[in-house]
Amino acid sequence: MNTYTANQIHLISRPSGLPTAENFKLKKVQLDEIVDHEILVKNIFMSVDPYMRGRMREDAVYAQAYPLNEVMYGGAIGEVIETLDPNFSPGDIVLNQRAWQDYFKGTGNELTKINPFDKNNISLYLGTLGMPGLTAYVGLFKFCDLKPGETVFVSAASGAVGANVCQIAKLKGCRVIGSCGSDKKSSWLKEECGVDEVINYKTCENLTEALKAASPMGIDVYFENVGGEHLQAALDCMNPFGRIAACGMIGSYNNALPEAGPNNLMLIVGKKIRITGFIVSDHADMKEKFLSEMIPWIQNGQIKSQETITVGIDKAVEAFLGLFTGQNFGKMIVKI
Amino acid sequence: MNTYTANQIHLISRPSGLPTAENFKLKKVQLDEIVDHEILVKNIFMSVDPYMRGRMREDAVYAQAYPLNEVMYGGAIGEVIETLDPNFSPGDIVLNQRAWQDYFKGTGNELTKINPFDKNNISLYLGTLGMPGLTAYVGLFKFCDLKPGETVFVSAASGAVGANVCQIAKLKGCRVIGSCGSDKKSSWLKEECGVDEVINYKTCENLTEALKAASPMGIDVYFENVGGEHLQAALDCMNPFGRIAACGMIGSYNNALPEAGPNNLMLIVGKKIRITGFIVSDHADMKEKFLSEMIPWIQNGQIKSQETITVGIDKAVEAFLGLFTGQNFGKMIVKI
Repeated sequence: MNTYTANQIHLISRPSGLPTAENFKLKKVQLDEIVDHEILVKNIFMSVDPYMRGRMREDAVYAQAYPLNEVMYGGAIGEVIETLDPNFSPGDIVLNQRAWQDYFKGTGNELTKINPFDKNNISLYLGTLGMPGLTAYVGLFKFCDLKPGETVFVSAASGAVGANVCQIAKLKGCRVIGSCGSDKKSSWLKEECGVDEVINYKTCENLTEALKAASPMGIDVYFENVGGEHLQAALDCMNPFGRIAACGMIGSYNNALPEAGPNNLMLIVGKKIRITGFIVSDHADMKEKFLSEMIPWIQNGQIKSQETITVGIDKAVEAFLGLFTGQNFGKMIVKI
Repeated sequence: MNTYTANQIHLISRPSGLPTAENFKLKKVQLDEIVDHEILVKNIFMSVDPYMRGRMREDAVYAQAYPLNEVMYGGAIGEVIETLDPNFSPGDIVLNQRAWQDYFKGTGNELTKINPFDKNNISLYLGTLGMPGLTAYVGLFKFCDLKPGETVFVSAASGAVGANVCQIAKLKGCRVIGSCGSDKKSSWLKEECGVDEVINYKTCENLTEALKAASPMGIDVYFENVGGEHLQAALDCMNPFGRIAACGMIGSYNNALPEAGPNNLMLIVGKKIRITGFIVSDHADMKEKFLSEMIPWIQNGQIKSQETITVGIDKAVEAFLGLFTGQNFGKMIVKI
């Protein structure tokens, strides 16, 4: 058994508005030798996700607030280096919630062994086969009662969740309209993912008008990743009995002060709309079915994944900040 | 067969903001003798309801817009005077959607015979036993999965819908918090309806703080009749997996320009809240069960009804306008 030096990213102050590099600090921490049933893991990939911004708030409701001056956490994939737990062996690939550090000592109950169908693509377990993919699947099938022939609008459509929503909805025979913030993302959505109409929300003059033009038959399902103006436009274009699944509202995460919401919420009544907020961790019951459908879709080339991979734990903060300025194209991953 | 002179209220211009008497006109219309299978009905009671404001807008989404210079319509109870339809007899009491007039010629398919359990209380079929009562029942049981022991918040709690929500929720073993706009209404809710806590939204300084104080265990179900600040406060106080049934947002009906919505909609995600908008006319399937529960509740004194009855069709506009300034106490009815 050896000792290791872990590089950890700590949150050292709570951001107001868009976080900056000064809110974080890279710390070197000496890890003692493992004891009892401990396991020493070296993380290979970690995920940076928009929801993490919520955990940086003192009054986090989305999930527990990150404590100050401690290492943050989140989804990661690592390799077992040393183990005193007989259920694990060195070389095991393990999914864990101990991101933002390269080495850590854990216990078996916080590690999920994965047997990747493609060893060159294990980062998929943080994206299309992981939390963002499952989020898309749960939102569409548990909360939107998706039916073939319906029209689905997806905001942040090229993002880690959005791109899966778009492609799953297409596979289920829906017409799909996506919004994104660059022409490059727009082309990928149309050409690679088969999305029917894409709106660049940064260059279209009026999102509601652009969405109306893109949805002559109205919208039946809206997958909400952004909030604000996107929600307003979706409500304006929705058909009676429309369903909205809301897994995030990235547009508001960095507001120092709360911003007023859409002015057309009365349409929820008039159009008899159902909005369901959800957090994927409550829906592990769907994981098995999700993987049984998603893995073949990926193997058959029916679901494409786009990743932006940043290298080095010292670049993790930069990668995280890039999520809020659209630097990522698809799932943002840090290779450690 | 005779001819009758009907007094009808026509919408003659579309209101901007709060409607005024000038938007309406009382017209006398000569009715021809009934022919074929027609039925001549004299309305006894008519209902004025907040949703009617929506029908006065050109761009009504809640329901069809009222055409200009024609008689308006809505729920009423009348008596058959003459009939050429053998399924009806003079003296039959009939529920109809032909309000805003004292006499009208109708056909059998637009009349529902009722056999009132109490002939002195037939106006109940426009309130507790009618559309508002069914709205309360559908909202709580179809969209809120109400469970005993939960905390329910009801806005416009002494209104036609709200008072039924409060009392049904109490009968089902819930803790109930209501909001209303006068101390008289507040006392009635507490003393007659058994509501646990009542907030006077006009005199409390801060609705969110008042609601927090009234709900130390948080809110599980919010019955939305008002919108705006009420929705904001409800979201702030809701527990994870809270449910909101939205049948109206009276606070916004008279806005000439749309008003911004709550600034805390992100809580829908963080607290995994479900909001369902609905219109009661889509849920006639629950009517039979509703009446089978509600009639005994009324007979046993377990559900109380409060009505404000205005006399004379020439006072119908005044009664309607009173809904938006809180003049009504409970269900607003016009006796014709």
